[in-house]
Amino acid sequence: MKKIGVVLSGCGVRDGSEIHEAVFTLLAIDRQGCEAVCMAPDAEFPVTNHLTMQECGEKRNMLVESARIARGNIHDIATVKAADLDAIIFPGGFGAAKNLCDFAMKGAAATVQPEVSRLLKEMAAAGKPIGAVCIAPALIAAVLGREYAPTVTIGNDAGTAAEIDKTGATHQDCAVTELVIDEKNKLVTSPAYMLANRIIDVAEGINKCVREVIKLI
Amino acid sequence: MKKIGVVLSGCGVRDGSEIHEAVFTLLAIDRQGCEAVCMAPDAEFPVTNHLTMQECGEKRNMLVESARIARGNIHDIATVKAADLDAIIFPGGFGAAKNLCDFAMKGAAATVQPEVSRLLKEMAAAGKPIGAVCIAPALIAAVLGREYAPTVTIGNDAGTAAEIDKTGATHQDCAVTELVIDEKNKLVTSPAYMLANRIIDVAEGINKCVREVIKLI
Repeated sequence: MKKIGVVLSGCGVRDGSEIHEAVFTLLAIDRQGCEAVCMAPDAEFPVTNHLTMQECGEKRNMLVESARIARGNIHDIATVKAADLDAIIFPGGFGAAKNLCDFAMKGAAATVQPEVSRLLKEMAAAGKPIGAVCIAPALIAAVLGREYAPTVTIGNDAGTAAEIDKTGATHQDCAVTELVIDEKNKLVTSPAYMLANRIIDVAEGINKCVREVIKLI
Repeated sequence: MKKIGVVLSGCGVRDGSEIHEAVFTLLAIDRQGCEAVCMAPDAEFPVTNHLTMQECGEKRNMLVESARIARGNIHDIATVKAADLDAIIFPGGFGAAKNLCDFAMKGAAATVQPEVSRLLKEMAAAGKPIGAVCIAPALIAAVLGREYAPTVTIGNDAGTAAEIDKTGATHQDCAVTELVIDEKNKLVTSPAYMLANRIIDVAEGINKCVREVIKLI
């Protein structure tokens, strides 16, 4: 059974992984007859209260909170190697741009969580497929932009697209349930909640994205 | 557009709403062209670390944590009346049996969070459809068992079924992707993660459950 890494960054759209996107990623992996290998960094992040949408001064741990989405079946990303996986997928949520890297604050000058950067570079060097949705393609650009010049989408936000272009990657506008497929780099991206107003569109876009990632194995 | 209440109890299988079940409930409601009205009690619960599966002594608030699943679009259940809804659905997770009531500790002798009990009784009295999956049918039995003698399923766990029968409800065994439909009480239940080993089965069972609840409106 093919093993598909799923990199999480917490549990909630404003301070971690977008929950709907993460769940639809796990569903789509099962639909394709593959096994999801969930992982997250063992590191703290600042908590946003999702009722008020304000930061509340609390800290939580990405691995511990991501375990909620994974029902406890999750690994510290530091223990996962590209050799353990056939492909890797990054759901979105602000955690992808605030916890896994600081793209949300620094744009193209972002620094990336070291184990996330290490694993992504290993996957790219091994020619293994990579998927990313919502804002997570910005993280892919921050890590792989200069060396691989990939083409990605986060939807159509001009400011974010401009920062992505500065990394060496190329941003391409894309509709909510469609994909951008960079065949050369085996990289599939889709806008999800960067554009979606309805959960049904998120489910459709992510299902397609995961299917195409797995086809590229 | 029909309004379907979704009662949440936190964000995580061991101390709140089961995340996959809650997300598939929201997806199925959108698929049927209806609007989800998420709600939770404004009350504390004890936190379980989902990496170690141990209680950790921390407290969080059900409304605040459930807002993660609802992306902030959520109501205090105390402010919701049956007149605001066309139907109501309870995803599972231990929160349904530990936070919304204490069935997990007391079985048929459970007491129920007052606003949850009030809204459920209002819905039943108004003849509006009710859906519940996983362990949540035990909560329905605890509230409505004596007065309505409903038939429900939580799968096939004999100990839980015996406690449900003591409430005045009748438990009926059921396969993971199937339903028990109590037409008289407009009550639809399905086992979800009480039996499921695969996320795809949870998605299928919940999609069917939500569809049948909405048909009963």
